[in-house]
Amino acid sequence: MRVFPAALERLTEQFAKLPGIGGKTAQRLAFYLLSQPQEEAEEFADALLEARKSVHLCPVCQNLTDRDICPICEDEERDHGLVCVVAEPKDVVAMERAREYHGVYHVLHGVISPLNQVGPDDLRIRELLERVGKGGVREVIMATNPDTEGEATAMYLSRLLRPLEVRVTRLAYGIPVGSQLEYADEVTLLRALEGRRDI
Amino acid sequence: MRVFPAALERLTEQFAKLPGIGGKTAQRLAFYLLSQPQEEAEEFADALLEARKSVHLCPVCQNLTDRDICPICEDEERDHGLVCVVAEPKDVVAMERAREYHGVYHVLHGVISPLNQVGPDDLRIRELLERVGKGGVREVIMATNPDTEGEATAMYLSRLLRPLEVRVTRLAYGIPVGSQLEYADEVTLLRALEGRRDI
Repeated sequence: MRVFPAALERLTEQFAKLPGIGGKTAQRLAFYLLSQPQEEAEEFADALLEARKSVHLCPVCQNLTDRDICPICEDEERDHGLVCVVAEPKDVVAMERAREYHGVYHVLHGVISPLNQVGPDDLRIRELLERVGKGGVREVIMATNPDTEGEATAMYLSRLLRPLEVRVTRLAYGIPVGSQLEYADEVTLLRALEGRRDI
Repeated sequence: MRVFPAALERLTEQFAKLPGIGGKTAQRLAFYLLSQPQEEAEEFADALLEARKSVHLCPVCQNLTDRDICPICEDEERDHGLVCVVAEPKDVVAMERAREYHGVYHVLHGVISPLNQVGPDDLRIRELLERVGKGGVREVIMATNPDTEGEATAMYLSRLLRPLEVRVTRLAYGIPVGSQLEYADEVTLLRALEGRRDI
Protein backbone atom coordinates (compact mmCIF):
# COMPACT_ATOMS: atom_id res chain seq x y z
CA MET A 1 0.00 0.00 0.00
CA ARG A 2 1.33 3.39 -0.97
CA VAL A 3 1.43 5.38 2.25
CA PHE A 4 2.76 8.74 1.11
CA PRO A 5 1.01 11.04 -1.37
CA ALA A 6 2.47 11.00 -4.90
CA ALA A 7 3.40 14.71 -4.74
CA LEU A 8 5.50 14.06 -1.65
CA GLU A 9 7.27 11.14 -3.32
CA ARG A 10 7.96 13.36 -6.31
CA LEU A 11 9.50 16.12 -4.18
CA THR A 12 11.61 13.51 -2.37
CA GLU A 13 12.88 12.21 -5.72
CA GLN A 14 13.86 15.73 -6.78
CA PHE A 15 15.91 16.19 -3.61
CA ALA A 16 17.48 12.76 -4.03
CA LYS A 17 18.80 13.80 -7.46
CA LEU A 18 21.05 16.42 -5.84
CA PRO A 19 24.70 15.41 -5.31
CA GLY A 20 25.42 14.03 -1.85
CA ILE A 21 21.75 13.77 -0.87
CA GLY A 22 20.62 10.20 -0.21
CA GLY A 23 17.11 8.78 0.05
CA LYS A 24 16.63 9.31 3.80
CA THR A 25 17.95 12.87 3.71
CA ALA A 26 15.77 13.65 0.69
CA GLN A 27 12.72 12.45 2.60
CA ARG A 28 13.68 14.50 5.63
CA LEU A 29 14.09 17.65 3.50
CA ALA A 30 10.75 17.06 1.75
CA PHE A 31 8.99 16.58 5.11
CA TYR A 32 10.62 19.74 6.40
CA LEU A 33 9.41 21.84 3.49
CA LEU A 34 5.88 20.49 3.89
CA SER A 35 5.93 21.54 7.52
CA GLN A 36 6.84 25.13 6.61
CA PRO A 37 4.36 27.87 5.69
CA GLN A 38 3.16 27.97 2.07
CA GLU A 39 5.16 31.18 1.42
CA GLU A 40 8.37 29.39 2.33
CA ALA A 41 7.86 26.81 -0.42
CA GLU A 42 6.91 29.54 -2.89
CA GLU A 43 10.02 31.53 -2.03
CA PHE A 44 12.19 28.46 -2.54
CA ALA A 45 10.60 27.62 -5.90
CA ASP A 46 10.92 31.23 -6.98
CA ALA A 47 14.61 31.43 -5.99
CA LEU A 48 15.23 28.29 -8.00
CA LEU A 49 13.57 29.52 -11.18
CA GLU A 50 14.99 33.00 -10.87
CA ALA A 51 18.55 31.73 -10.36
CA ARG A 52 18.31 29.29 -13.25
CA LYS A 53 16.84 31.98 -15.49
CA SER A 54 19.00 34.98 -14.66
CA VAL A 55 22.36 33.38 -13.97
CA HIS A 56 24.57 32.46 -16.91
CA LEU A 57 28.26 32.41 -17.73
CA CYS A 58 30.10 35.65 -18.41
CA PRO A 59 31.08 35.47 -22.11
CA VAL A 60 34.57 36.74 -21.26
CA CYS A 61 35.72 34.88 -18.13
CA GLN A 62 33.03 32.14 -17.89
CA ASN A 63 32.28 33.01 -14.27
CA LEU A 64 28.64 32.96 -13.16
CA THR A 65 26.88 36.28 -13.55
CA ASP A 66 23.43 37.82 -13.98
CA ARG A 67 24.68 40.69 -16.14
CA ASP A 68 25.80 40.75 -19.79
CA ILE A 69 29.42 40.83 -18.67
CA CYS A 70 30.46 40.08 -15.07
CA PRO A 71 31.44 42.96 -12.75
CA ILE A 72 35.10 41.88 -12.67
CA CYS A 73 35.47 41.77 -16.47
CA GLU A 74 33.65 45.09 -16.74
CA ASP A 75 35.86 46.79 -14.17
CA GLU A 76 38.11 49.24 -16.05
CA GLU A 77 40.48 49.54 -13.09
CA ARG A 78 41.52 45.90 -13.17
CA ASP A 79 44.47 44.66 -15.19
CA HIS A 80 43.00 42.86 -18.21
CA GLY A 81 46.44 41.72 -19.34
CA LEU A 82 46.70 39.40 -16.33
CA VAL A 83 44.40 36.36 -16.36
CA CYS A 84 44.12 33.97 -13.40
CA VAL A 85 42.83 30.53 -14.41
CA VAL A 86 40.75 28.77 -11.72
CA ALA A 87 38.75 25.54 -11.73
CA GLU A 88 35.50 26.70 -10.13
CA PRO A 89 33.56 29.94 -9.49
CA LYS A 90 34.15 29.51 -5.74
CA ASP A 91 37.89 29.77 -6.37
CA VAL A 92 37.30 33.30 -7.67
CA VAL A 93 35.76 34.09 -4.28
CA ALA A 94 38.85 32.67 -2.53
CA MET A 95 41.20 34.76 -4.68
CA GLU A 96 39.15 37.92 -4.21
CA ARG A 97 39.26 37.38 -0.46
CA ALA A 98 43.04 37.92 -0.58
CA ARG A 99 42.28 41.48 -1.88
CA GLU A 100 45.66 41.70 -3.56
CA TYR A 101 44.86 40.37 -7.01
CA HIS A 102 43.88 43.05 -9.49
CA GLY A 103 43.86 41.08 -12.73
CA VAL A 104 40.90 39.21 -14.22
CA TYR A 105 39.87 35.55 -14.18
CA HIS A 106 39.07 32.59 -16.37
CA VAL A 107 36.87 29.85 -14.88
CA LEU A 108 37.39 26.36 -16.35
CA HIS A 109 34.36 24.76 -14.60
CA GLY A 110 36.28 21.67 -13.59
CA VAL A 111 39.63 20.01 -14.09
CA ILE A 112 40.71 17.28 -16.47
CA SER A 113 39.88 14.01 -14.74
CA PRO A 114 39.91 10.81 -16.80
CA LEU A 115 38.51 8.88 -13.81
CA ASN A 116 35.42 11.09 -13.77
CA GLN A 117 35.15 11.18 -17.56
CA VAL A 118 36.05 14.87 -17.71
CA GLY A 119 38.19 15.62 -20.76
CA PRO A 120 39.56 18.95 -22.08
CA ASP A 121 36.45 19.45 -24.22
CA ASP A 122 34.23 19.48 -21.12
CA LEU A 123 36.06 22.51 -19.75
CA ARG A 124 36.15 26.14 -20.90
CA ILE A 125 39.57 25.71 -22.48
CA ARG A 126 38.66 26.72 -26.03
CA GLU A 127 37.33 30.03 -24.66
CA LEU A 128 40.63 30.63 -22.84
CA LEU A 129 42.70 29.97 -25.97
CA GLU A 130 40.51 32.27 -28.06
CA ARG A 131 40.74 34.96 -25.41
CA VAL A 132 44.52 34.80 -25.20
CA GLY A 133 44.79 34.40 -28.98
CA LYS A 134 43.04 37.74 -29.50
CA GLY A 135 46.04 39.41 -27.84
CA GLY A 136 46.27 41.86 -24.97
CA VAL A 137 47.02 39.18 -22.38
CA ARG A 138 50.61 39.30 -21.03
CA GLU A 139 50.42 36.63 -18.35
CA VAL A 140 48.25 33.67 -17.44
CA ILE A 141 48.48 32.52 -13.81
CA MET A 142 47.49 28.90 -13.22
CA ALA A 143 45.57 28.71 -9.94
CA THR A 144 44.05 25.25 -10.14
CA ASN A 145 44.22 23.21 -6.92
CA PRO A 146 47.65 21.81 -6.01
CA ASP A 147 46.46 18.20 -6.39
CA THR A 148 47.11 15.67 -9.15
CA GLU A 149 44.22 16.70 -11.37
CA GLY A 150 44.74 20.42 -10.84
CA GLU A 151 48.44 19.98 -11.64
CA ALA A 152 47.76 17.95 -14.77
CA THR A 153 45.24 20.51 -16.00
CA ALA A 154 47.72 23.35 -15.41
CA MET A 155 50.45 21.48 -17.29
CA TYR A 156 48.10 20.71 -20.17
CA LEU A 157 47.00 24.34 -20.44
CA SER A 158 50.53 25.70 -20.25
CA ARG A 159 51.52 23.53 -23.24
CA LEU A 160 48.58 24.87 -25.23
CA LEU A 161 49.32 28.47 -24.25
CA ARG A 162 53.06 28.49 -24.90
CA PRO A 163 52.76 28.90 -28.71
CA LEU A 164 50.61 32.00 -28.11
CA GLU A 165 53.63 33.83 -26.69
CA VAL A 166 52.18 34.59 -23.30
CA ARG A 167 53.90 34.21 -19.96
CA VAL A 168 52.42 31.25 -18.07
CA THR A 169 52.97 31.08 -14.29
CA ARG A 170 51.78 28.92 -11.41
CA LEU A 171 50.86 29.97 -7.85
CA ALA A 172 53.83 29.34 -5.54
CA TYR A 173 53.97 26.20 -3.46
CA GLY A 174 55.20 26.40 0.09
CA ILE A 175 54.36 26.19 3.74
CA PRO A 176 51.06 27.88 4.59
CA VAL A 177 51.32 31.09 6.57
CA GLY A 178 50.51 30.50 10.24
CA SER A 179 51.20 26.77 10.05
CA GLN A 180 53.86 24.85 11.95
CA LEU A 181 56.90 23.36 10.24
CA GLU A 182 56.70 20.08 12.11
CA TYR A 183 53.32 19.35 10.57
CA ALA A 184 54.26 20.22 6.99
CA ASP A 185 54.37 17.18 4.66
CA GLU A 186 57.62 16.32 2.85
CA VAL A 187 56.45 17.33 -0.62
CA THR A 188 55.31 20.74 0.57
CA LEU A 189 58.59 21.27 2.45
CA LEU A 190 60.59 20.25 -0.60
CA ARG A 191 58.65 22.70 -2.77
CA ALA A 192 59.09 25.42 -0.15
CA LEU A 193 62.84 24.78 -0.18
CA GLU A 194 63.03 24.82 -3.98
CA GLY A 195 61.09 28.08 -4.07
CA ARG A 196 63.13 29.81 -1.34
CA ARG A 197 63.72 33.53 -1.80
CA ASP A 198 66.22 36.11 -0.58
CA ILE A 199 65.11 38.27 2.32
CA MET B 1 33.24 43.07 -4.02
CA ARG B 2 30.23 40.83 -4.50
CA VAL B 3 31.43 38.04 -6.79
CA PHE B 4 28.31 35.90 -7.16
CA PRO B 5 25.06 37.09 -8.72
CA ALA B 6 22.31 37.94 -6.22
CA ALA B 7 19.98 35.24 -7.55
CA LEU B 8 22.61 32.60 -6.85
CA GLU B 9 23.13 33.89 -3.31
CA ARG B 10 19.38 33.78 -2.80
CA LEU B 11 19.12 30.16 -3.94
CA THR B 12 22.06 29.25 -1.69
CA GLU B 13 20.29 30.88 1.26
CA GLN B 14 17.16 28.87 0.57
CA PHE B 15 19.12 25.62 0.62
CA ALA B 16 20.96 26.69 3.77
CA LYS B 17 17.60 27.06 5.57
CA LEU B 18 16.98 23.32 5.24
CA PRO B 19 17.82 21.21 8.30
CA GLY B 20 21.29 19.64 8.20
CA ILE B 21 22.42 21.70 5.19
CA GLY B 22 25.33 24.03 5.97
CA GLY B 23 26.65 26.97 3.96
CA LYS B 24 29.16 25.03 1.87
CA THR B 25 26.69 22.26 1.01
CA ALA B 26 24.02 24.84 0.15
CA GLN B 27 26.44 26.51 -2.26
CA ARG B 28 27.33 23.16 -3.84
CA LEU B 29 23.64 22.32 -4.35
CA ALA B 30 22.91 25.73 -5.85
CA PHE B 31 25.87 25.39 -8.25
CA TYR B 32 24.68 21.93 -9.21
CA LEU B 33 21.18 23.12 -10.08
CA LEU B 34 22.58 25.97 -12.17
CA SER B 35 24.62 23.45 -14.13
CA GLN B 36 21.52 21.38 -14.96
CA PRO B 37 19.21 22.01 -17.91
CA GLN B 38 16.48 24.60 -17.42
CA GLU B 39 13.76 21.90 -17.35
CA GLU B 40 15.43 20.28 -14.35
CA ALA B 41 15.09 23.46 -12.30
CA GLU B 42 11.50 23.90 -13.47
CA GLU B 43 10.63 20.34 -12.51
CA PHE B 44 12.13 20.85 -9.06
CA ALA B 45 10.24 24.11 -8.50
CA ASP B 46 7.04 22.50 -9.72
CA ALA B 47 7.43 19.46 -7.45
CA LEU B 48 7.95 21.82 -4.54
CA LEU B 49 4.85 23.92 -5.18
CA GLU B 50 2.71 20.94 -6.04
CA ALA B 51 3.70 19.03 -2.89
CA ARG B 52 3.14 22.03 -0.66
CA LYS B 53 -0.24 22.72 -2.28
CA SER B 54 -1.69 19.24 -2.55
CA VAL B 55 -0.32 17.58 0.57
CA HIS B 56 -2.05 18.25 3.89
CA LEU B 57 -2.82 16.35 7.07
CA CYS B 58 -5.58 13.75 7.09
CA PRO B 59 -8.26 15.23 9.40
CA VAL B 60 -8.68 11.83 11.09
CA CYS B 61 -5.18 10.42 11.67
CA GLN B 62 -3.04 13.52 10.91
CA ASN B 63 -0.86 11.59 8.46
CA LEU B 64 0.20 13.35 5.25
CA THR B 65 -2.21 12.88 2.36
CA ASP B 66 -3.36 14.47 -0.87
CA ARG B 67 -6.94 13.26 -0.50
CA ASP B 68 -9.77 14.47 1.75
CA ILE B 69 -9.19 11.51 4.04
CA CYS B 70 -6.07 9.32 3.78
CA PRO B 71 -6.30 5.86 2.16
CA ILE B 72 -5.73 4.06 5.47
CA CYS B 73 -8.50 5.92 7.32
CA GLU B 74 -10.82 5.44 4.36
CA ASP B 75 -10.17 1.69 4.17
CA GLU B 76 -13.33 -0.08 5.40
CA GLU B 77 -11.47 -3.34 5.89
CA ARG B 78 -9.16 -1.99 8.56
CA ASP B 79 -10.01 -2.11 12.25
CA HIS B 80 -10.95 1.44 13.21
CA GLY B 81 -11.24 0.46 16.87
CA LEU B 82 -7.46 -0.04 17.05
CA VAL B 83 -5.32 3.11 16.85
CA CYS B 84 -1.53 3.00 16.68
CA VAL B 85 0.10 6.26 17.84
CA VAL B 86 3.37 7.11 16.08
CA ALA B 87 5.62 10.16 16.20
CA GLU B 88 6.21 10.75 12.47
CA PRO B 89 4.66 9.89 9.09
CA LYS B 90 7.71 7.72 8.30
CA ASP B 91 6.85 5.52 11.27
CA VAL B 92 3.57 4.67 9.52
CA VAL B 93 5.65 3.40 6.60
CA ALA B 94 7.72 1.25 8.99
CA MET B 95 4.60 -0.25 10.59
CA GLU B 96 2.96 -0.91 7.21
CA ARG B 97 6.11 -2.70 6.09
CA ALA B 98 5.46 -5.35 8.76
CA ARG B 99 2.17 -6.12 6.89
CA GLU B 100 0.59 -7.49 10.04
CA TYR B 101 -1.08 -4.42 11.46
CA HIS B 102 -4.63 -3.91 10.33
CA GLY B 103 -5.74 -1.10 12.59
CA VAL B 104 -5.45 2.64 11.88
CA TYR B 105 -2.91 5.29 12.94
CA HIS B 106 -2.54 8.58 14.69
CA VAL B 107 0.51 10.69 13.82
CA LEU B 108 1.70 13.07 16.56
CA HIS B 109 4.23 14.94 14.37
CA GLY B 110 6.95 14.87 16.99
CA VAL B 111 7.48 13.89 20.61
CA ILE B 112 7.47 15.98 23.77
CA SER B 113 10.98 17.37 24.13
CA PRO B 114 11.59 20.22 26.57
CA LEU B 115 15.16 20.58 25.31
CA ASN B 116 13.91 21.34 21.81
CA GLN B 117 11.05 23.46 23.05
CA VAL B 118 8.41 20.95 21.95
CA GLY B 119 5.53 20.80 24.40
CA PRO B 120 2.26 18.81 24.27
CA ASP B 121 0.48 21.68 22.48
CA ASP B 122 2.91 21.43 19.56
CA LEU B 123 1.82 17.84 18.84
CA ARG B 124 -1.45 16.43 17.51
CA ILE B 125 -2.52 15.30 20.99
CA ARG B 126 -5.78 17.25 21.19
CA GLU B 127 -6.90 15.56 17.96
CA LEU B 128 -6.13 12.13 19.44
CA LEU B 129 -8.12 12.83 22.60
CA GLU B 130 -11.09 14.12 20.59
CA ARG B 131 -10.92 11.09 18.35
CA VAL B 132 -10.88 8.63 21.24
CA GLY B 133 -13.44 10.70 23.17
CA LYS B 134 -15.95 10.28 20.33
CA GLY B 135 -16.03 6.56 21.11
CA GLY B 136 -15.49 3.53 18.90
CA VAL B 137 -11.81 3.13 19.81
CA ARG B 138 -11.09 0.03 21.98
CA GLU B 139 -7.33 0.17 22.11
CA VAL B 140 -4.55 2.70 21.60
CA ILE B 141 -1.10 1.22 20.91
CA MET B 142 1.81 3.51 21.74
CA ALA B 143 4.47 3.09 19.08
CA THR B 144 6.71 6.08 19.75
CA ASN B 145 10.45 5.35 19.64
CA PRO B 146 11.88 3.42 22.61
CA ASP B 147 14.05 6.37 23.69
CA THR B 148 13.65 8.83 26.56
CA GLU B 149 11.47 11.31 24.71
CA GLY B 150 9.36 8.63 23.01
CA GLU B 151 8.85 6.95 26.37
CA ALA B 152 7.92 10.17 28.14
CA THR B 153 5.44 11.04 25.39
CA ALA B 154 3.85 7.59 25.61
CA MET B 155 3.54 7.86 29.39
CA TYR B 156 2.05 11.34 29.14
CA LEU B 157 -0.51 10.21 26.57
CA SER B 158 -1.45 7.10 28.49
CA ARG B 159 -2.28 9.25 31.51
CA LEU B 160 -4.50 11.48 29.40
CA LEU B 161 -6.20 8.51 27.73
CA ARG B 162 -6.92 6.43 30.85
CA PRO B 163 -9.99 8.46 31.95
CA LEU B 164 -11.51 7.82 28.49
CA GLU B 165 -11.83 4.11 29.29
CA VAL B 166 -9.74 2.82 26.46
CA ARG B 167 -7.10 0.11 26.64
CA VAL B 168 -3.63 1.68 26.25
CA THR B 169 -0.75 -0.62 25.26
CA ARG B 170 2.91 -0.23 24.29
CA LEU B 171 4.90 -2.11 21.66
CA ALA B 172 6.88 -4.92 23.34
CA TYR B 173 10.53 -4.38 24.20
CA GLY B 174 12.96 -7.20 23.63
CA ILE B 175 15.87 -8.49 21.65
CA PRO B 176 15.56 -7.73 17.93
CA VAL B 177 14.89 -10.74 15.71
CA GLY B 178 18.06 -11.86 13.94
CA SER B 179 20.37 -10.14 16.42
CA GLN B 180 22.91 -11.82 18.67
CA LEU B 181 22.48 -12.06 22.44
CA GLU B 182 26.07 -11.13 23.20
CA TYR B 183 25.58 -7.71 21.58
CA ALA B 184 22.28 -6.88 23.30
CA ASP B 185 22.55 -4.06 25.85
CA GLU B 186 21.63 -4.68 29.48
CA VAL B 187 18.42 -2.66 29.48
CA THR B 188 17.08 -4.43 26.40
CA LEU B 189 17.96 -7.82 27.86
CA LEU B 190 16.27 -6.92 31.16
CA ARG B 191 13.13 -5.86 29.29
CA ALA B 192 13.23 -9.03 27.19
CA LEU B 193 13.45 -11.09 30.38
CA GLU B 194 10.58 -9.22 32.02
CA GLY B 195 8.45 -9.69 28.95
CA ARG B 196 9.22 -13.39 28.48
CA ARG B 197 6.35 -15.55 27.24
CA ASP B 198 5.42 -19.22 27.35
CA ILE B 199 6.25 -21.22 24.26
